[in-house]
Amino acid sequence: MEEIVNPYKIMILNLGSTSYKFKLYRIARDASGQDYFTEELIAEGAFERIGTSGKCLIRTKQQDWEEERAFSDHLEAFLFSIQWLSENWILSSLVELDAIGFKSVHAGEVSGARIINEEILEIMKHYSAFAPAHNPLYIRLMKQLAVQYPKLLQIGCFETSFHTNIPEKRMIYGVPDSWRNGLGIRRYGFHGSSHSYIAWKMQQTNPDARKIISLHLGGSSSLCAIEKGKSIATSMGATPQSGVFQNNRVGDFDIFCLPVLMDYYKEDWKKILQVLSKESGFLGVSGVSNDLREVLEAAEKGNHKAQLTVDAFVDSLIGYIGMFTAYLKGVDAIVFTGGIGLGSSLIRKRVCEELVYMGLYLDEAANKKGTEGRISRKDSRISVYTWKTNEELMVARSCVRVLEDCEKKGKE
Amino acid sequence: MEEIVNPYKIMILNLGSTSYKFKLYRIARDASGQDYFTEELIAEGAFERIGTSGKCLIRTKQQDWEEERAFSDHLEAFLFSIQWLSENWILSSLVELDAIGFKSVHAGEVSGARIINEEILEIMKHYSAFAPAHNPLYIRLMKQLAVQYPKLLQIGCFETSFHTNIPEKRMIYGVPDSWRNGLGIRRYGFHGSSHSYIAWKMQQTNPDARKIISLHLGGSSSLCAIEKGKSIATSMGATPQSGVFQNNRVGDFDIFCLPVLMDYYKEDWKKILQVLSKESGFLGVSGVSNDLREVLEAAEKGNHKAQLTVDAFVDSLIGYIGMFTAYLKGVDAIVFTGGIGLGSSLIRKRVCEELVYMGLYLDEAANKKGTEGRISRKDSRISVYTWKTNEELMVARSCVRVLEDCEKKGKE
Repeated sequence: MEEIVNPYKIMILNLGSTSYKFKLYRIARDASGQDYFTEELIAEGAFERIGTSGKCLIRTKQQDWEEERAFSDHLEAFLFSIQWLSENWILSSLVELDAIGFKSVHAGEVSGARIINEEILEIMKHYSAFAPAHNPLYIRLMKQLAVQYPKLLQIGCFETSFHTNIPEKRMIYGVPDSWRNGLGIRRYGFHGSSHSYIAWKMQQTNPDARKIISLHLGGSSSLCAIEKGKSIATSMGATPQSGVFQNNRVGDFDIFCLPVLMDYYKEDWKKILQVLSKESGFLGVSGVSNDLREVLEAAEKGNHKAQLTVDAFVDSLIGYIGMFTAYLKGVDAIVFTGGIGLGSSLIRKRVCEELVYMGLYLDEAANKKGTEGRISRKDSRISVYTWKTNEELMVARSCVRVLEDCEKKGKE
Repeated sequence: MEEIVNPYKIMILNLGSTSYKFKLYRIARDASGQDYFTEELIAEGAFERIGTSGKCLIRTKQQDWEEERAFSDHLEAFLFSIQWLSENWILSSLVELDAIGFKSVHAGEVSGARIINEEILEIMKHYSAFAPAHNPLYIRLMKQLAVQYPKLLQIGCFETSFHTNIPEKRMIYGVPDSWRNGLGIRRYGFHGSSHSYIAWKMQQTNPDARKIISLHLGGSSSLCAIEKGKSIATSMGATPQSGVFQNNRVGDFDIFCLPVLMDYYKEDWKKILQVLSKESGFLGVSGVSNDLREVLEAAEKGNHKAQLTVDAFVDSLIGYIGMFTAYLKGVDAIVFTGGIGLGSSLIRKRVCEELVYMGLYLDEAANKKGTEGRISRKDSRISVYTWKTNEELMVARSCVRVLEDCEKKGKE
């Protein structure tokens, strides 16, 4: 095992409406003092169907553990994982943790990595309406932990963080100033941990690629234009329901359809938003599934609506790639990540076929293999990569920066 | 005067909420039988501030007439213009007209040039919610004329027409099938007469330009990707409130901001849509004016919000140009039209500066002149043009096709 000097032990939590994932890191900044880290993943876990009963996995260097378990909420799942780690000699107790890092989603203008306190929780609550699938979950667990373990340092790393450098002109909607500044109605962007991982990974593997378009395609999908390591544009706006088609969320939409919908749904606007956030996207258009694999299968069998879904999804990706190429004034590399990005050679092929006019040539054999790395031909003017994203790692590194700041302040 | 064989006399009406414009054409298809026309503009008029009192202009080959006049509604304005034309020996009476052609806006899936009847009026009424600034005006006048002049042929040429060939995958939102087919919730696109005029004009002047991006920038703005004369993408969606920033309409927006807005406006969703359609766009962001000329002036004087408005407008144009370049797989020519497109050399310059990476070089002197024609340098890989659009002419031609069909059917 690599020697890590003065490591922190940080547990990263990634919550979904019915899922719970953690990664436990030993991590420290390298001696150089630069923004480089040495990190060791000690354990990781993924529990399904929180609230009912589902498959629970924990993996360490020593063993893979798997069981069907029932947890009533995320707190129970968290406490169980700590107990498991303790029983298996991975962690003596919760006290050994330097911090819990949350891959939290939305706190409006408050972004970056923040120590969770009452004020931040209040702001997160305000923005719950923008991210109803995530913010309430995080707030609840953070509050529960604060009560039970008041000394435990909680750090929220917001998914909007990577996008805070996008120019103002590109982050506003055409709305009155009072809406922007008073109500926080503006673009924010999400999947920051994933896109920033891609920016870092590309810096490591192809530092000559200064203009990158990152496609995080999965349960939810967004694209990000990265210039010299920084986000300069992204496809999601005020909320993670916007941008390209999502699994069951609508993506870009015209709010002026509202009168017709209000008439049809008898003024029940919550129902309308529910359809747009639960019964739309891949599921809504195909009528088959919110899982693109099943939609692709149905399309293969000749289902027209499934084929339309795939075509429209690819088309919207092409549209944003074009838009971001203009914002970047050219593009050096395109990166696919996320469940679909890494898992579907067909989607990658379909996207790349449309970009041949830019001098992008896919290496068909490499693409089919589906392993990480470069999948474009040597004569391609634009490189294409697939990378497995590591959002928790980026959250862990952000936590280290916060912990170092705390130490510095402690010494002052 | 050129001899026009078997001409039709058609009066084209273009209605705004407080404006009334007409053009009276003598027009016939050329002897070749191809889709070429010979047309003569006999008279044109523009009346301002319908409902109160405003400037009224009528121009013929013989004279320019101008007076301050008060009209209570569009019908009164129309009847006055017929009377004026009759008194000035231009038209004997209404009976001499072969048809009235309306630059009408939205009838959902019903598009193209249609003879107005009860059925079409009903469909237009259904889509009034999508185009509240226009559909009700047209419906009202059409009904009034049908009652007073039942023999007068009325033809509606819908602004969505030019976009009916856009592939289905690019015209759907990620919504359930029942919304698309049952409620007509899909993209339609607008400014069809203007973009089709640009397509035709470019065919006349530079037939080698197969891939064109048309920027209709004015009181309302949209972009259109034109391939071999046909629209293959456009920036407006279900309604003319979407796409790039408009004068006082929002443009693209995230409907999931609704919960925050509903909370703030106490569930008054009509008020929210009113702000988005009347107090947004240039006006909302700048706080200065819905007239870009005044916003540009304020920006010039150092007003930050005005500058932000201009920057965001240009940025959104660049974004759509990039998107459409990807859809077209390259671009041969970019065309500016509409009040801003033709009137603002600064906006053209700002846009073109961002496209130098594509090998687009503006001819600065030609751009400043502001006359119609090519304004790019000879060594520019992409040509840039400014053309004064002529929406009424395209409507008149569509009317000729309908009248010919009627004659054919009459003979059968």
